[in-house]
Amino acid sequence: MSVRLAYREGLVEPTSGRAPGYTQANLVVLPREWAFDMLLFGQRNPQPVPLLDVTDPGSYQTALAEDADLRTDLPLYRVWENGELVAEVPDVRDLWRDDLVSFLIGCSFSFESALIDAGVPVRNIDQGINVSMYRTSVDCRPAGRLSGPLVVSMRPIPAALVPLAVQVTARMPKVHGAPVHVGSPESLGIPDLATPDFGDPVSFEPGDIPVFWACGVTPQAALMASRPPFALTHAPGHMFITNTPNTTYHLP
Amino acid sequence: MSVRLAYREGLVEPTSGRAPGYTQANLVVLPREWAFDMLLFGQRNPQPVPLLDVTDPGSYQTALAEDADLRTDLPLYRVWENGELVAEVPDVRDLWRDDLVSFLIGCSFSFESALIDAGVPVRNIDQGINVSMYRTSVDCRPAGRLSGPLVVSMRPIPAALVPLAVQVTARMPKVHGAPVHVGSPESLGIPDLATPDFGDPVSFEPGDIPVFWACGVTPQAALMASRPPFALTHAPGHMFITNTPNTTYHLP
Repeated sequence: MSVRLAYREGLVEPTSGRAPGYTQANLVVLPREWAFDMLLFGQRNPQPVPLLDVTDPGSYQTALAEDADLRTDLPLYRVWENGELVAEVPDVRDLWRDDLVSFLIGCSFSFESALIDAGVPVRNIDQGINVSMYRTSVDCRPAGRLSGPLVVSMRPIPAALVPLAVQVTARMPKVHGAPVHVGSPESLGIPDLATPDFGDPVSFEPGDIPVFWACGVTPQAALMASRPPFALTHAPGHMFITNTPNTTYHLP
Repeated sequence: MSVRLAYREGLVEPTSGRAPGYTQANLVVLPREWAFDMLLFGQRNPQPVPLLDVTDPGSYQTALAEDADLRTDLPLYRVWENGELVAEVPDVRDLWRDDLVSFLIGCSFSFESALIDAGVPVRNIDQGINVSMYRTSVDCRPAGRLSGPLVVSMRPIPAALVPLAVQVTARMPKVHGAPVHVGSPESLGIPDLATPDFGDPVSFEPGDIPVFWACGVTPQAALMASRPPFALTHAPGHMFITNTPNTTYHLP
């Protein structure tokens, strides 16, 4: 995939809109000693943490793109130590270790294109901004040392299209699936939609209802809270582009 | 659930047909030191190994039935050492250890009742015998020390009902999902349907086609091949009965 080769050679750019039709994935990389907890966290919280692939310790290859190198083929990485962000770098070859396990996690980019194809407007895309994301008062089911709140993304959806938006995304459980909540931000513990915890505030059109999906930032929030000694992730919006068509994750 | 209490008090019987409407699960119990490999094997092979719940190390409680005790509430257990079956016992309290992790795995009993509800005959039930199961020439994707062949169950389905059988089971991916193969046993490396590797030979009616589903015996076959020092499983047909309705695992 030529766009991955460009990232390997140093290009840094957000991946939104790149390689249309192909699944993009969140990346979390942890030492083997923490990998069981992370794998269990994904097993127990499949809506916010839909695991698309998990590598063998030390391997930087994935079944999602057999010609890719996970150390170089994302445009930008974040480096974490003890839960603190310590660097953003375009290449992690010099940080790689034999005990690192990579987790590739489904991303809402896939269902946004399915919504658009179905005729449901996606306001954050129309407005050219990042989606709004919020920490909620709902706890994920803990796994070992990992625990934290469910993080949700919110999209304003015209009231008449809410049922269609539910049906379209319910067919894609590997990229967060059906919404977790429709309307009523206060019952998720969100005091003010205009001040998201991550991303940008998205404007509502008249008649829009806030619809909330489980969000791939959830595992990063758990990592920040649980402070493993070392972790790598993608930088926000700078995802891993796979060779897997989005349609692979559509249910029958 | 009163039937679980009867098993806790010592009743030994196969669970087929018990607690109709509730999900039954395969059980695999392994030391923590092997649990990452098993969890990864499930992540990588979701059709034969659909993980419904995974416990914390040492815990004998599961989210699938909060009042249950996994050490006593199955009618019969198997004890394995270095890949060899060493005992069958109705209670494993005296074998329990603080480092044991329990894996509860979806079972085809759930989709058999869905097939019958849809009007698809299930010959093994009509004939009052166990389903036919076969080792195939298809390898599972390995995970650490765990590897082995895909094991399939086979049900003869009237040719006109094969599409319906596919559709009904495709909606239940957590209990093995759609068939992996229709017809042509030789292309799965099965030389003779009349001599299954596990279970009983099931008779065909005129016009029946052999339909193959991924089977929950797959992880047991991998364990036998990979020889962990210690493991517990359910005895064949003596499953864990959960509090979870079968409909929980139907897709929208």
